[in-house]
Amino acid sequence: MDLNADLGEGLGSWTMGDDAAMFRLVSSANVACGFHAGDPVTMLDSCRAAFELDVRVGAHVGYRDLHGFGRRSMEMSFDELYGDVLYQLGALDGIAHAVGASVDYVKPHGALYNRIVHDTDQAEAVVAAIQAYDPGLPVLGLPGSAFLRLAGEVGHPVFHEAFVDRGYLPDGTLVPRSQDGAVVHDAGAVVERAVRLATRGELEAVDGSVVRVRADSLCIHGDTPGAVELAAAVRKGLEDAGVEIAPFA
Amino acid sequence: MDLNADLGEGLGSWTMGDDAAMFRLVSSANVACGFHAGDPVTMLDSCRAAFELDVRVGAHVGYRDLHGFGRRSMEMSFDELYGDVLYQLGALDGIAHAVGASVDYVKPHGALYNRIVHDTDQAEAVVAAIQAYDPGLPVLGLPGSAFLRLAGEVGHPVFHEAFVDRGYLPDGTLVPRSQDGAVVHDAGAVVERAVRLATRGELEAVDGSVVRVRADSLCIHGDTPGAVELAAAVRKGLEDAGVEIAPFA
Amino acid sequence: MDLNADLGEGLGSWTMGDDAAMFRLVSSANVACGFHAGDPVTMLDSCRAAFELDVRVGAHVGYRDLHGFGRRSMEMSFDELYGDVLYQLGALDGIAHAVGASVDYVKPHGALYNRIVHDTDQAEAVVAAIQAYDPGLPVLGLPGSAFLRLAGEVGHPVFHEAFVDRGYLPDGTLVPRSQDGAVVHDAGAVVERAVRLATRGELEAVDGSVVRVRADSLCIHGDTPGAVELAAAVRKGLEDAGVEIAPFA
Amino acid sequence: MDLNADLGEGLGSWTMGDDAAMFRLVSSANVACGFHAGDPVTMLDSCRAAFELDVRVGAHVGYRDLHGFGRRSMEMSFDELYGDVLYQLGALDGIAHAVGASVDYVKPHGALYNRIVHDTDQAEAVVAAIQAYDPGLPVLGLPGSAFLRLAGEVGHPVFHEAFVDRGYLPDGTLVPRSQDGAVVHDAGAVVERAVRLATRGELEAVDGSVVRVRADSLCIHGDTPGAVELAAAVRKGLEDAGVEIAPFA
Repeated sequence: MDLNADLGEGLGSWTMGDDAAMFRLVSSANVACGFHAGDPVTMLDSCRAAFELDVRVGAHVGYRDLHGFGRRSMEMSFDELYGDVLYQLGALDGIAHAVGASVDYVKPHGALYNRIVHDTDQAEAVVAAIQAYDPGLPVLGLPGSAFLRLAGEVGHPVFHEAFVDRGYLPDGTLVPRSQDGAVVHDAGAVVERAVRLATRGELEAVDGSVVRVRADSLCIHGDTPGAVELAAAVRKGLEDAGVEIAPFA
Repeated sequence: MDLNADLGEGLGSWTMGDDAAMFRLVSSANVACGFHAGDPVTMLDSCRAAFELDVRVGAHVGYRDLHGFGRRSMEMSFDELYGDVLYQLGALDGIAHAVGASVDYVKPHGALYNRIVHDTDQAEAVVAAIQAYDPGLPVLGLPGSAFLRLAGEVGHPVFHEAFVDRGYLPDGTLVPRSQDGAVVHDAGAVVERAVRLATRGELEAVDGSVVRVRADSLCIHGDTPGAVELAAAVRKGLEDAGVEIAPFA
Repeated sequence: MDLNADLGEGLGSWTMGDDAAMFRLVSSANVACGFHAGDPVTMLDSCRAAFELDVRVGAHVGYRDLHGFGRRSMEMSFDELYGDVLYQLGALDGIAHAVGASVDYVKPHGALYNRIVHDTDQAEAVVAAIQAYDPGLPVLGLPGSAFLRLAGEVGHPVFHEAFVDRGYLPDGTLVPRSQDGAVVHDAGAVVERAVRLATRGELEAVDGSVVRVRADSLCIHGDTPGAVELAAAVRKGLEDAGVEIAPFA
Repeated sequence: MDLNADLGEGLGSWTMGDDAAMFRLVSSANVACGFHAGDPVTMLDSCRAAFELDVRVGAHVGYRDLHGFGRRSMEMSFDELYGDVLYQLGALDGIAHAVGASVDYVKPHGALYNRIVHDTDQAEAVVAAIQAYDPGLPVLGLPGSAFLRLAGEVGHPVFHEAFVDRGYLPDGTLVPRSQDGAVVHDAGAVVERAVRLATRGELEAVDGSVVRVRADSLCIHGDTPGAVELAAAVRKGLEDAGVEIAPFA
């Protein structure tokens, strides 16, 4: 099972989360490419850490929105979004290669991630950019999203992620954040869910039913209080259950 | 002889010069990479034009300064400048590859170009980034600059440019812009100088003496009134004199 | 009758339209505040021109989006939009006061202008910012928009603009740009419409019916080919018809 | 005696230091204006905190350089720097007024602060902008700087700051950071120096001699580990010594 987290999210003098700790816990790092977070020096540091620790580098492409951290949905033309994704892919790849690493996969960030679950116009632009950059580049995203569907149709290896600390509905989709049960706060429950997902491909939905969830990677977070401890507990719980942590890419 | 010009210098809704005309006159295009000018859509357009017209693509790397168009000298640490140059190289290369082109050479822009004539710290950072990106990538710059010297020392093919509309001192350096004779305004004189440079490797200095100037490429401009006409006259003058216009890279 | 245009839309080395000509034709200038266009030097130049020519200065507030020229709709929280509008108002006012001018009114720009026709959340944030800045500041916008309605409810003097080169539906709203008749291309027709709007408060809709349109100001454009000539023709047509061009604010 | 600190230095999702704690310790807050740090929401929060706690608001104007946090010296024309300072002053003032506060003084930030100690061209541009904004606005800076000298010559109330954790040379200037003794690390020594500065206007230089230092305000820092504790100790030490903490402005 792969563990992925959003890393390299600092900007110049600003830091976000404890990257040094998180890089030792994940097998795949979604590295910000400078549009919603990240700067060349931070990207270099992230790629070096990934290379040294045998962590895969994902291009965490996002909207050009430092002030909103890429969390504000934006209208963009096909050409604009296509160009912005290509630009970010190339920039991260250039930096990765300088330290012996490479862009191993793509995972969109924030509002872009959410928008291309349903917005096929923007999903097509993102997929077209990835396709133009490298037609064999793996993509990581939400099961059922337009993004993964379109990427798969043009031949990209497609990987699905699940969220160990989010509640699920009986149909396998996430409980909206506005509803009860959207977030699982108990650390023990989170670890238990991670193990069940990794070993049996299922978890308990908010209504108590058992739902099958495809998970090629489990997404963990590193930028909230206690996040590193929780991530470490998830990793230890998986390893204790005999699950090998290894990159999907 | 190669003709180079700074192209792709728009930003979003803003344009700069007449790229459509200029791409038909040059053999090498210095394409802005988004830090001092240029955006991914403009970069795509520039790389497509270059590919279709068999023009070489140069990475016109600059300071991160849209408001100053990269013309304001900045202090930067080695790591910052190294990262910024790598980032721009990768970004442009990613975009170029998507349209069948590639980054064929590097020419620094504006204040960075001027600073690394003498500032060896910044020149080292720029060269190290180019070296890390591609140790065989050609570089284009000012004869006698620290940038070209350092790039040559680590093995980059080095190409020198001359300026057909600038006055030269007897020692082969440019007349400072604050002095008389810094700019040659007469179109006929500019064409004559271009031909003499291309055919005999010399031109007349401000004091009337003849100075030998190494020129692998002649820099022409496209963003001032009458610039396209002058550039066309230079090209025609060279061709009429039997000089083949061809990329150095 | 007031004539307004979007001016001061350059950025650093980039220009947009012929401000020198347009400042002599309008009575109100919507001056970009640095978020979608404009920089402090351009803002200073615009405010100086306005002051010298007795043109009113409008704060043309927009989304923080230089690459999209503020034409891309964005999700923003109330606090973010409230803060961004306040920031732009203060910045322009500081610059205006330095040259003897002041911010005389507010007109939102581009995607923000369009969005707050209907999006009451964003309209409320914009109005709250203007209210906090100056509870008596006039606002200029689209008749029937949520923005003008909310601004009026809290006491701002409200002014309506009409578009001399846009087609209208029989209900007084604009013909969508995707439909025939959205834009009036004939210069004579544009002038005729301007005069009819100014003298009788009516114009001919696309179906030939006569529709009453409230217009405290006519919006003209300066950034397209032939725009200055058309603007001059509109102004001359109005003056020839005995309409005095004067600021609403 | 006044205590000042650089606050409001977050950007969007990124934070810098513990503003909540620091606002309770200082009497003057240098609030970032969006060019090197700070965004409108952070500026609003800072101005609200200042207003509620009776802390003075200083415009902490800096270079337009988020990636370098305003710590990289830049060449700028008079007009560019004049405009950038005016813009920041107006923006912060607009936000401050919305919450009942105001810009009470100006203190340049980072590389700009350091550059206008000696660079009279840039110092003149900064002073001209402050003068144009409000000819009676107090300024805070380094004793002996061109900035304070020029500001004083045109009538601005001038206030001098001293650094409780920096070593001083016998001539009253700071020990360069490249030399031994540049920073005083011992907390007790820092508190002792603060008290001696506040009560007797003197401190011990690196060579053991006693040097007189004019201090209208003591600068403390909030963004390093242990900074808040040290700041609290300085404040307590001053109060225990009978020094009243009160704004200079």
